[in-house]
Amino acid sequence: MAKKRVLILGGGFGGIYVAKTLEKLRTDRDEFEIALINKDNYFVYQPMLAEIISGHVGMFDTISPLRSLLRKSDVIVREVESIDLVNKRVITSPGFKPVRAEYPYDYLVLALGNVTDFRGLTGLTQHALRFKYLSDALMLRNHVIRTLEEAAVETNPKLKQALLTFVVAGGGWSGVECVAEMNDFVRKVARKYRNVDPKQVRMVLLQSDTRILREMDESLALAAQQVMTRNGIEIRLETRLAAATGDEAVLSSGERIPSKTLVSTVPGSPNPVIEALDLPKGVGRGGKSNHRIKVNRELQVEGSDHIWALGDCAQIPDPEDSTGEKFCPPTAQHAVREGELCAKNIVATMRGEPKKQFGFTGLGQMGVFGHHSAVAQLKMGSMKVNIKGYLAWLMWRAVYLMKLPGWDRRVRTLTAWITASYLPTDTVQLTMRPQAGIVQEHYEPGQYVFDQGDLGDRLFIIIKGRAEVMKTENRLTKKLAELEPGQFFGEMALLREGMTTRMAAVRAVEPLDVLSVPRQDITALVDYIPALRDNFDHVMKERDRQNLGVPPARQQAPIQQTDSEDTVYIKR
Amino acid sequence: MAKKRVLILGGGFGGIYVAKTLEKLRTDRDEFEIALINKDNYFVYQPMLAEIISGHVGMFDTISPLRSLLRKSDVIVREVESIDLVNKRVITSPGFKPVRAEYPYDYLVLALGNVTDFRGLTGLTQHALRFKYLSDALMLRNHVIRTLEEAAVETNPKLKQALLTFVVAGGGWSGVECVAEMNDFVRKVARKYRNVDPKQVRMVLLQSDTRILREMDESLALAAQQVMTRNGIEIRLETRLAAATGDEAVLSSGERIPSKTLVSTVPGSPNPVIEALDLPKGVGRGGKSNHRIKVNRELQVEGSDHIWALGDCAQIPDPEDSTGEKFCPPTAQHAVREGELCAKNIVATMRGEPKKQFGFTGLGQMGVFGHHSAVAQLKMGSMKVNIKGYLAWLMWRAVYLMKLPGWDRRVRTLTAWITASYLPTDTVQLTMRPQAGIVQEHYEPGQYVFDQGDLGDRLFIIIKGRAEVMKTENRLTKKLAELEPGQFFGEMALLREGMTTRMAAVRAVEPLDVLSVPRQDITALVDYIPALRDNFDHVMKERDRQNLGVPPARQQAPIQQTDSEDTVYIKR
Repeated sequence: MAKKRVLILGGGFGGIYVAKTLEKLRTDRDEFEIALINKDNYFVYQPMLAEIISGHVGMFDTISPLRSLLRKSDVIVREVESIDLVNKRVITSPGFKPVRAEYPYDYLVLALGNVTDFRGLTGLTQHALRFKYLSDALMLRNHVIRTLEEAAVETNPKLKQALLTFVVAGGGWSGVECVAEMNDFVRKVARKYRNVDPKQVRMVLLQSDTRILREMDESLALAAQQVMTRNGIEIRLETRLAAATGDEAVLSSGERIPSKTLVSTVPGSPNPVIEALDLPKGVGRGGKSNHRIKVNRELQVEGSDHIWALGDCAQIPDPEDSTGEKFCPPTAQHAVREGELCAKNIVATMRGEPKKQFGFTGLGQMGVFGHHSAVAQLKMGSMKVNIKGYLAWLMWRAVYLMKLPGWDRRVRTLTAWITASYLPTDTVQLTMRPQAGIVQEHYEPGQYVFDQGDLGDRLFIIIKGRAEVMKTENRLTKKLAELEPGQFFGEMALLREGMTTRMAAVRAVEPLDVLSVPRQDITALVDYIPALRDNFDHVMKERDRQNLGVPPARQQAPIQQTDSEDTVYIKR
Repeated sequence: MAKKRVLILGGGFGGIYVAKTLEKLRTDRDEFEIALINKDNYFVYQPMLAEIISGHVGMFDTISPLRSLLRKSDVIVREVESIDLVNKRVITSPGFKPVRAEYPYDYLVLALGNVTDFRGLTGLTQHALRFKYLSDALMLRNHVIRTLEEAAVETNPKLKQALLTFVVAGGGWSGVECVAEMNDFVRKVARKYRNVDPKQVRMVLLQSDTRILREMDESLALAAQQVMTRNGIEIRLETRLAAATGDEAVLSSGERIPSKTLVSTVPGSPNPVIEALDLPKGVGRGGKSNHRIKVNRELQVEGSDHIWALGDCAQIPDPEDSTGEKFCPPTAQHAVREGELCAKNIVATMRGEPKKQFGFTGLGQMGVFGHHSAVAQLKMGSMKVNIKGYLAWLMWRAVYLMKLPGWDRRVRTLTAWITASYLPTDTVQLTMRPQAGIVQEHYEPGQYVFDQGDLGDRLFIIIKGRAEVMKTENRLTKKLAELEPGQFFGEMALLREGMTTRMAAVRAVEPLDVLSVPRQDITALVDYIPALRDNFDHVMKERDRQNLGVPPARQQAPIQQTDSEDTVYIKR
C-alpha cells in the first residue's frame, strides 16, 4: 500500500509548524509522507524583516533554510499555480525546464498567506516598493543606499532633495517598523557622505487614520508617534497615498512630495490561488467574499474530510466567541498554534482518534519603532499590561530571539546584534541588475517623461492618457505636438545612429501610462522583425518629410495640420 | 584660485591605494581635491571572493564600502564611459536621471583594470557564468543552490545529473579557487537534500595546458592537482571549452558534458574605455597592441605630464629588467605598491620635487584550493621557499586577514571564520529576479530549443543557423519544417488564448543563435504596436490555412511546398 501524503502549501509560520509537528508525531507505525511547497527555499522571520534594512542583523542571520528546519519532510521550492481539488493535485511553476509540475496529495494543508497587490492603485505597481518578503527588504536597503550615492554626486538641488526624501504609506506595524528602521539607517550613514547634509533627510509616514497602530491601545500608539516624531519622522495623519510616479508621491490632498523612494505597506490581498479555489469562503465587508477559507474550530475546511486551512488565508472562529462573527487575527503567535493543532488533527484523522478544537486567544502584541524604542501590550489572563520604551525594546529582542527557529540562527542574530553595536554600519550596495525588459510607467499631469538633452535610453508607447512634445530654442518653448494612446515617442534618439540625446521634451497632459521599452530590446527586435523595422522606417521618413523631428500625430500617418497650428509659446 | 583635482578611475587595489596615500600626503598647504570613480560603492577583496561561494565568509564581510576607506575623497559611484583627453573630462553613465555626467580633472589616474569578455567564444556570453566581481560570486552561489533545489525535485534522471554537474573552465588561480570552494560547498550541503545523492555530484575543471597553475612551480601545482583530485574534482588537462549552451559544456575534443552550471574564468580582456584611449600602448603577442597603457618607471604615461596609469590596465617596466621587455605582473601586491608610489609622484609633481621609480619585485605567491589546503611560494631575497598543505593554508588566512583593508572587516571576517567552523553551512537562496528582457541563446546541433508539451513561455527569432520543427503523433515523429535566420517560432503557445503548451518540438540542425523574447514582453508589444500585431495575425492565418500549426518557411509568406515534401519519419 502506498504511503499517504500530507502536502502543505506555504512555508510561513503556519506551514512550518504543521510540518515540524507532523515530523514529531510520525511514528514507525504511521506511514505517511510530509511534503511542503514554498516559493523560496527559506523561512522568513517576519518580525525581524525591518532590521535587515538598517543592518542591525545581517542579510541572512534571521532567515532559516527550510531544509534545516524540516529534516524529515520533502521540501519543494516552486510557486503554487493552482490546485486541482477533483484529482487531488497541486500544479506548480516549472523549474529549469518549462514543463508543468504536479504534486498529488491525500491530505492538503492550505497555509499560503496573502499577497501584496497594488492593482487599482494608480502607479503603485510600477513605482512603489513593497515590504513583505526578504527580497523586498534587500531591494529596499539597496535602493536606499543607491539614493544616498546619487545624492552625494547630484548637483541639481531639487533632484537631490527628492533623493533624500523617503515616503512610507501605511501606519500599521509593517509601515511603522519599516519607516523607523529606514530612518535609523539613513540618518546614521548619511554622515559618511561628504556632500550630503543629514539635515536634508526627510522621512515621511502616511496614515489614512487619525492615529498610527490601530491595533494597539491609544496611549501606546501616541507614545510611539511622539518618539518617532522626535526621531525626525514626519507623521501625516488622515492622509492617503493617491498615486505614485517615478518622481513623486501624490497625496489624497493633492499635495505632491518629490521622492525617489516610496514604500507602500497596503494590507494584504487574498492569494490568487486561494481566490480561485471552489471552497467555502468567509464574508467580508459589504457582504462580499473576503476570500479567506472557512474552517471549523478543528481547522478543517467546511464540507471536506482531507483539506485543512490556517494562517492568513483561513477564517478561523475565535475561541472566545459564540456568535460566529469573530475570527482569529492573522498574527504569527496564532499561526504557530494553528499549525501545531492542524498537525495533531491530521494525525488524529488518520488514526481515527477524536480531533481537538483551537483554543488559543493571544498573548498580546509588541513591536519596535526605532533603536531602543518599543511598545508591548501583554495579556495576562483577563488583565492587560502596557509597557513602553527601553524595557519594552529589551523584551522585544529577548522574546523574538527565543522564538527564532533554529539555534544556529539565534547565535547568528545575537552575534550580529553585538557586532552591530560597536562596528560601523555597513553601506555596501548589492548591485542588482536594473529592472530589465519592458515595463509600464505612470506619470502625473505636468510631469516630464524626459527632458530635452536627456540621454535616449528607451522608447515609450502611450497606453492611456495624453502627452505633449515641447521643444526649447532660443529660450522659447514651443509645443510641437500632442500624443495620444497607441502613439510612440522617444525612438529618434534610439534608432538614428550618432544621435543619443533627446531633441525635445515630452510631458504628461493627463495622467499618463506608458510602456517603456529599453534601447537594447527595441533595437534587437527592430533588427530581426522586418515588419517592425518597416514600421519605424516609415515613421522616421514621415518626420523627416515634415522636418519636425517629432512623432506624427497618428502613428504611420502624416502629422495633422491642426497640431502645428495650436502651437503655443511658453517662456522658460 | 580653484583647487587642483586628482581624479582616480577604478576602485580596485591600485585606485584605492592611490587615494589612501594621497589623503595621507595632503597637508593644509597642498590644496588639492581627490575624487575616485568606481562602478560599485565598495572595494572587493579579490583574494577572498571564492570564500563567498562556500559561505566561509558572509556575503559582505570582506567587502569594504569605499566611503569608509576614503573619508577625505569624493567617491563617485558611476560607470566610466569615456575619457576626453583634450578637454580633461571623464564621461560617466547617468544616474536616476538619464543625463550625461562629466567630471573634470587636472591629474588623471587610470586604474580601471581589465574586464571579462566572452565575445568570440560561442555561447559563453549567453550561458556561462563569470567569476570576477562580487555580483558574480553571489550569482554563482545562488545558482548553485538553485540547481540543488531543482535536483531535489527532478524526476528525469538525465536532467538531475546535469543539475548536479558543475564545470569550471580555466586552470589559473581564479578557476582553481572557484572550483575548490564550489566543491567544498556542494559536497557539504548536498547531504541536506533528501533526494540528492552526494555521490552523484560531479565537479569538473577544464585546463587547456598540461597542468594547472602555470604561474607556480611545477611541484606545487602537481601537489594541488593531487589534493583536488582526492577531493573529488575531475581535472581535464589539455582540454579547452569550445562552446556553451544552456544545457551543456562542449569541449574541444567534441565531448559534451551535460551541465546546468558552467563557469568560465578566461583571462581578462582590455577595458573598452582604455582600448579607446589615444595613448601609447604596449605591444603584445604577434606585434599587436595589448591595450595596456605604456608608462615609465615613475608610472607616468609616456608623453604626458598629468596622466598616470597602474594596475592591470598599465604596462609597467620590471624593475629588475634592463632590456625593456619585461613588465610587472598584474597582482594585488604590485597594485598596492604602484598605488602608493603613484600618489607620491603626483604630489611630488605638484610640489616640483623629484619623482621616484617603481622598485618592487614581488614577495611570492599563494593560494587555496580547498578547506585546509593551500600552496605558497615565497621570495626571500634571491631564495625561493615552497610551502604546502595545512601550514600554507594557515599562512594564507593570516596574511590575507592582515592585508584586508579596514579593521571592522577584519573583525567581521574573523568572526565569520569562527562561526562557520561550528555552525551549519547556510543554504539560503537569495531569490534574484530571473534574467528579464530579450536575451540571446545558443544551441548546438541536435539540441532541443523546446520539446513538444513544454510550457510556452517565450518566442524565438532565429539570428543564425537552422532549426527543424518536429511533431510526434502516435509514436511517430515527423519533421514538419525547417527554419532559417529571420524566421520566428514558438509564438503559437503565447499568442493564442488558452494554448499554453508547445504543439511541436524545435531543435537545432546547425549551431543556432536565437533571440529569446519573454511572453510578457512580446504580448505587451503586440498589444500596443499595430504593425507587429498585423504581422503576427498574418502568420497565424497562414498557419491555419496550411493547417500546419508551424511557422511558414518564410516569414509573412506562405509555406513552400518543398518543406512538406521533404518530411522525414523518425521512430522515437
